[in-house]
Amino acid sequence: MSGSTGEGQVIEVLSIGDELLDGLVQEANGLFLAETLARRGLSVSRHTLVRDDAPDIVAALRGVRSRGASACVVSGGLGPTDDDRTAAAAATAFGVEIVRRSDWVEHLESRYAARGRTLRENNRKQADLPDGAQLLWNDLGTAPGFRFSVDHCDYYFLPGVPREYRPMCRDAVVPALVDRAPAPTVTAAVIRTFGLPESEVDQRLAGVSEETGAWMGFRASFPEVHVRLRGAPREVLKASSIVRQRLAPAVYGEGDDTFPGAVVAALRSARSTLAVAESCTGGLVGKLLTDAPGASAAFLGGALVYSNELKTRFAGVPKPLLEEHGAVSEPVAKSLATGIQGRTDATYGLGITGVAGPGGGGEDKPVGLVWLAVAGPEGVKSRRIQFPGDRAQIRRLSAFAGLEMVRRRVA
Amino acid sequence: MSGSTGEGQVIEVLSIGDELLDGLVQEANGLFLAETLARRGLSVSRHTLVRDDAPDIVAALRGVRSRGASACVVSGGLGPTDDDRTAAAAATAFGVEIVRRSDWVEHLESRYAARGRTLRENNRKQADLPDGAQLLWNDLGTAPGFRFSVDHCDYYFLPGVPREYRPMCRDAVVPALVDRAPAPTVTAAVIRTFGLPESEVDQRLAGVSEETGAWMGFRASFPEVHVRLRGAPREVLKASSIVRQRLAPAVYGEGDDTFPGAVVAALRSARSTLAVAESCTGGLVGKLLTDAPGASAAFLGGALVYSNELKTRFAGVPKPLLEEHGAVSEPVAKSLATGIQGRTDATYGLGITGVAGPGGGGEDKPVGLVWLAVAGPEGVKSRRIQFPGDRAQIRRLSAFAGLEMVRRRVA
Repeated sequence: MSGSTGEGQVIEVLSIGDELLDGLVQEANGLFLAETLARRGLSVSRHTLVRDDAPDIVAALRGVRSRGASACVVSGGLGPTDDDRTAAAAATAFGVEIVRRSDWVEHLESRYAARGRTLRENNRKQADLPDGAQLLWNDLGTAPGFRFSVDHCDYYFLPGVPREYRPMCRDAVVPALVDRAPAPTVTAAVIRTFGLPESEVDQRLAGVSEETGAWMGFRASFPEVHVRLRGAPREVLKASSIVRQRLAPAVYGEGDDTFPGAVVAALRSARSTLAVAESCTGGLVGKLLTDAPGASAAFLGGALVYSNELKTRFAGVPKPLLEEHGAVSEPVAKSLATGIQGRTDATYGLGITGVAGPGGGGEDKPVGLVWLAVAGPEGVKSRRIQFPGDRAQIRRLSAFAGLEMVRRRVA
Repeated sequence: MSGSTGEGQVIEVLSIGDELLDGLVQEANGLFLAETLARRGLSVSRHTLVRDDAPDIVAALRGVRSRGASACVVSGGLGPTDDDRTAAAAATAFGVEIVRRSDWVEHLESRYAARGRTLRENNRKQADLPDGAQLLWNDLGTAPGFRFSVDHCDYYFLPGVPREYRPMCRDAVVPALVDRAPAPTVTAAVIRTFGLPESEVDQRLAGVSEETGAWMGFRASFPEVHVRLRGAPREVLKASSIVRQRLAPAVYGEGDDTFPGAVVAALRSARSTLAVAESCTGGLVGKLLTDAPGASAAFLGGALVYSNELKTRFAGVPKPLLEEHGAVSEPVAKSLATGIQGRTDATYGLGITGVAGPGGGGEDKPVGLVWLAVAGPEGVKSRRIQFPGDRAQIRRLSAFAGLEMVRRRVA
């Protein structure tokens, strides 16, 4: 049965929360866990989403038990409010009492005291766990996770907030599931690309699976395309090298690499620095570059030149240039790039100006038209791109395309 | 039970596909349906994801039946390949035979003939439906959908490809579900806040549900907390006014309002402009303000002063000030705010400098320490905040807290 993992482990996922079933929030924890497990040769057999409703949660937990799962990873409903009902429902489903864990209450008290705040009763409620549960520490929030084992099945209950869920999942859940499973005979790899549409990637990689024996799939993570490989280590290695060959230079990294991280790494290894002058992206390029720590070694900063006035003041774009060609034009993009480079003494200056929409487009300069320019030691180069999509997509594509010009220039 | 819609309809969603449980593809059909239904006052009670495995699919369909659902919308597993097993599993679950639908075979034949291609046997397989099913036309693909009714429950089977699923869902499923439901007598509202932790919101609103009769729930959308209300229009109106009273001034909007949008709106209605000097946020404030169109009327731009050098060049922070107090200090935050205000002629200047981590923290200036300052017509005010969390949280909290200082100053 494909529902079970290689050696008989059956792993289920249960996500709890009204917001997940009202279309307000895209459930992301199940996908994260499935991806993480897949890299270790394990797979999820079923994923259930239910509302913050005690009878629904109890029924879902009983369903997991009735299907003979060996592990179930639950998230959500551990918060301080009235509609957080997971721990109580778990106690009902397992037929045990709820007990208040004094170790967690003390932890919360000292944490609150350190900030000069007093613990409220609804925060104490978060220390209420089913009797016999093992507490799972949560460094990032006020709700602990917990583990409960019954009928040869380990249930892991984690907070639903992804930023608390992910480290706890990685530290307390995945290693235990991997330990329980026999050594995997399959391995997996992800190769990350930017700049080719998914259909082109698909076409260029036709036959790779047949040639190598590795399973191959694509995942679009806008605006990137990731190629995923799985199989015996030898198959994956062979496929990986073919994929890199056929897609280069669009391949920027693999595994957990990020695109902005790859740009920073390229700059650092070339001992170069970058400054930006952003118009239509409004700060997005800077935000992407500084999402990860370590950017400061290569990224100096720059200017948000949303208004024409600031294009002149901060990047030295001559007023007549703006008047003659308009803000979205090749001369202005070049002037932004050279201006910001000169005023910051950066090795490279990146200028971006475009029509992100939805308004503001005209016959000559439709929505999605973007001019990019990079100034460097060898002079300034520019590029005109007409992007498809809505405002958010156009801005994101502009930021990525600008950074890609820098990456290829540096590499 | 919160799992049912207002008037007794119980709608479940079932998604079928190995790729959904291997972390390769984010399930999107369930979210699309939930969003579409929520806008019409209907809600989904449970969403189940299972693999392309006949016994798993049969078990899932029987589970839906056992819970007394009135409708179930299934997607995936209708393709031409061997691992598409949904129609056969449905026939097993409903205890009927499979029959080949000649109307669909003829449609496929003429479609293929028109393109000069010949129909393959595995495409014919897509015309195999459970006996008694009503065929649902698919204009965009080779697999039809189908509807099967048993035990007062309508099952809708649709292709998993979102491009085919969405129009079929919109045309054939949603209208039928809406017709079946009585006219909604409930209304919903969302009140959006920033600045209070969820536990504090919960405490301040204790008893509102009992006082008004409206259902109330919270959603943390980091770093915001949204209060959700549902009930008869009169109940929701009453609850809404109490919520606004008890949480003001943390309430910045309602419905689809966004926090940066509220800041821009406040600036516009005060005919004021804003410029920013961002250090640790690296462009995030500008990005947030320009996510929505229309920011240019109030947001001029500013400077990304990631390096100390640029703090001096773009915001005029005196070098001795940086040397004496360090970049993360009250004098530097104030100097950033007044400097950027002066150099851009904006009504308000916002300066942000802090330690976003994970490295770079010290005894005096731990990770999470952020200085914010706003310079305006009435002078410059500053705030020191020690934020909890990781780098992404600290940056997001810093950006929001800075914008909140501006919003309250302007309002």
